[in-house]
Amino acid sequence: MKNIYLSLVLCAISATAVAQTAEDAAFVKGLYQQALGEQQGYKWLANLCSEAGPRLAGSEGDAKGVKWAVETLDTLGFDRVFTQPVDVRHWARGVETAECLQGKTKRPLRVTALGGSVGTPGGDKGPGLTAKVIEIVGREDLAAKGHLLAGNVVFYNEPMDPWLINTGSSYGKAGWQRWGGASEAAKFGAVGVLVRSLTHRNDDFPHTGAMAYEEGVTKIPAAGISTNDANWLSAELKKNPNLQVHYTLGCHEVGRAMSANVIAEWKGSEFPDQVMVVGGHLDSWDLGTGAQDDGAGVVHSMQALWLLKQAGYQPRHTMRIVLFANEEFGLEGARDYADSGLESGRTHLAGVESDGGSGAPRGFSLPAFFHEAHPEIIEALNTLLSPYGCREWTQGGSGADVGQITDEGAILMGYRGDSQRYFDYHHTAQDNIESVHPRELELGSASMAALMYYLDKTL
Amino acid sequence: MKNIYLSLVLCAISATAVAQTAEDAAFVKGLYQQALGEQQGYKWLANLCSEAGPRLAGSEGDAKGVKWAVETLDTLGFDRVFTQPVDVRHWARGVETAECLQGKTKRPLRVTALGGSVGTPGGDKGPGLTAKVIEIVGREDLAAKGHLLAGNVVFYNEPMDPWLINTGSSYGKAGWQRWGGASEAAKFGAVGVLVRSLTHRNDDFPHTGAMAYEEGVTKIPAAGISTNDANWLSAELKKNPNLQVHYTLGCHEVGRAMSANVIAEWKGSEFPDQVMVVGGHLDSWDLGTGAQDDGAGVVHSMQALWLLKQAGYQPRHTMRIVLFANEEFGLEGARDYADSGLESGRTHLAGVESDGGSGAPRGFSLPAFFHEAHPEIIEALNTLLSPYGCREWTQGGSGADVGQITDEGAILMGYRGDSQRYFDYHHTAQDNIESVHPRELELGSASMAALMYYLDKTL
Repeated sequence: MKNIYLSLVLCAISATAVAQTAEDAAFVKGLYQQALGEQQGYKWLANLCSEAGPRLAGSEGDAKGVKWAVETLDTLGFDRVFTQPVDVRHWARGVETAECLQGKTKRPLRVTALGGSVGTPGGDKGPGLTAKVIEIVGREDLAAKGHLLAGNVVFYNEPMDPWLINTGSSYGKAGWQRWGGASEAAKFGAVGVLVRSLTHRNDDFPHTGAMAYEEGVTKIPAAGISTNDANWLSAELKKNPNLQVHYTLGCHEVGRAMSANVIAEWKGSEFPDQVMVVGGHLDSWDLGTGAQDDGAGVVHSMQALWLLKQAGYQPRHTMRIVLFANEEFGLEGARDYADSGLESGRTHLAGVESDGGSGAPRGFSLPAFFHEAHPEIIEALNTLLSPYGCREWTQGGSGADVGQITDEGAILMGYRGDSQRYFDYHHTAQDNIESVHPRELELGSASMAALMYYLDKTL
Repeated sequence: MKNIYLSLVLCAISATAVAQTAEDAAFVKGLYQQALGEQQGYKWLANLCSEAGPRLAGSEGDAKGVKWAVETLDTLGFDRVFTQPVDVRHWARGVETAECLQGKTKRPLRVTALGGSVGTPGGDKGPGLTAKVIEIVGREDLAAKGHLLAGNVVFYNEPMDPWLINTGSSYGKAGWQRWGGASEAAKFGAVGVLVRSLTHRNDDFPHTGAMAYEEGVTKIPAAGISTNDANWLSAELKKNPNLQVHYTLGCHEVGRAMSANVIAEWKGSEFPDQVMVVGGHLDSWDLGTGAQDDGAGVVHSMQALWLLKQAGYQPRHTMRIVLFANEEFGLEGARDYADSGLESGRTHLAGVESDGGSGAPRGFSLPAFFHEAHPEIIEALNTLLSPYGCREWTQGGSGADVGQITDEGAILMGYRGDSQRYFDYHHTAQDNIESVHPRELELGSASMAALMYYLDKTL
């Protein structure tokens, strides 16, 4: 039924109906002016980072984040604010030390456990792990050197491809080392892995991020190593291939914990049962305060609807801000939301996600089917938003959270800010409010608001 | 004759001839890959900032900048590197102190002399200036309060308009206070001015920048005041309208000095007498090391041609890197270049300037006549460069330096990087290499190279 409904909606839109008007342009301009003048999103983000701090799923900070979101949304006067409880995996970091052994001297290495890793033997108080290091650069190198890995630590050192323009693409290309590198190495008998941090920058901050073990393969401890130390270690190994490392990771599973999706709803005047979502994820990694990942998406989402509300807009479809639980560690919030976030009889018409940081607007990705069916809407959006830097209307997915929505025909979209700086901070102790440029953040919020406005009006 | 020649050239270009090819796309991709992989521009910029430091026209740093440019360009193997001597105004900063007097207590204010200002009475060792402060917000306020200004210090506090998307436009709008505010106030008998710094940021760094006195009007000392202190002073004046300030400026004219334009030339194979310029200015303000203003433009220009040379390209027209002297303080280098930079019989076909910092590419401005005559070239450029973020092809000027070129029909263009962060650093002690993102800078260099390539091939 959803499918039939959507086809009807899409067919009913004529090119004339969607042409943007001078009134639309004035309304959109007002959204940007309000955002840039008031900077409410930046104030919220600074507040979230200081009040809740790091928000690793299941942690105390995560609970503070949920509380902050409910309390803040409650002040905005939407029709209802509620939580959807989510049972989440809770993993915790412990002691983290590492050093390279060079005869009698020890050279400290800056490492941090990858999310989900087991600890080294004995955990916090154990002896840690000592073994020879083998550098692996790329999948072919792994296959070629597999026979050398037994009993050793694998040092994955494939850098992010500097040649790709969108840093998200480079991240995706090098990401296999972090996500599955431990099990790949364990299959060859390796006892641990150190993974080059996923960033283009050379600095001293190791990056964490989720990893997973393959079933049936020995779980070996996995840590990220800063790019400066990765470069140093690589150079040192060329001089002395028998180098050993020693490292201790106290990380461990805590068990299950309760978290929540936080949802604010603004009822539509014409189609209350058709829901348009704007969302980001409330959880973050534990090293920084998650200003970029994904505090920016949280406040983009909150502010998008808040800007519309302040402008006196009344949506035709029901709009929702959805702040998802535990994106980083299993998408449990997004999955629960997709399964049971909507009451029976309601459907998702559209959803837009922001989970790429606070960069100045470049555009939005929209599904291929929508590009094909409605080039005139894309064209109108481009005309409306290009004065504000949104000129890239790509075909693609929304993001991990909104992407879980499976309603047939739902238009799932993603905000695309400039990507050059995002991985400088991503999953590190530097992901804090200082990395956020207020105006760039606000331009993102207004772009999200303008997209929601035009689609709500047109669909 | 130049005019006739250009018309012929422009008419001869057919739409088919300019359509970009797969070969063009591959060549351009190679330029970006080389830039991002090697990061030569960033290395040069770091080196310029540390070797030469601040490069105020006529200063020792300015001379070091010229030396650095000649020596660095000499290593690149172009056909010739030469300097064009430029006689420049040399002004120097001295002691700078300021405080707000509140009864017996003094509250320090962060100020810095505007470029070209006279000092306070007695200069470095004088008593400074003490007077009541009158806040003026906007031109109308100045007209309305003119009768109150005699004997007082005018505190210009019109902020940069937060609503404009391009920060350069906000800068232009508020710039009258800094450029002409002193003489405007002096006409009403004011004895000094403090000018709110031209930035969207609230911080503690006062911004300098050129000002000028109107002939026949008393010269009064002018200083920039940090936005944080401007906000504080404004709030304080509401409580106590009789507040006084005391400030000392030791700035003064040193006299004339010699500087130089630095030029590297790469001879064209088909049209050696038709010159295409890529340029920025070597001088900077004295507070920071001019990484953004305009070290970025210097290395964008150097690297643009260096990327083409490394790619094995042979230009059809003669190409030049021109690093201009003294943009900040009178455009003397650019004027001298426009007057006599070319030998008799040669003409400028085109010029592109980078003087807006190191922001990630947004596009280029090109003259209206070129947009009108050759939409197909703009379209081809957009197709070639949009994968790298260049999607804004506006009608407009090039910049202050290249803009001095008066050859009839010359196509004068400007690089447009993202503008949000530029005025955070502009004309302050913070304009240093730390403010530059290596990849954003490199994307700019490659965009300049790609533009030069396509125009050289097509025109």
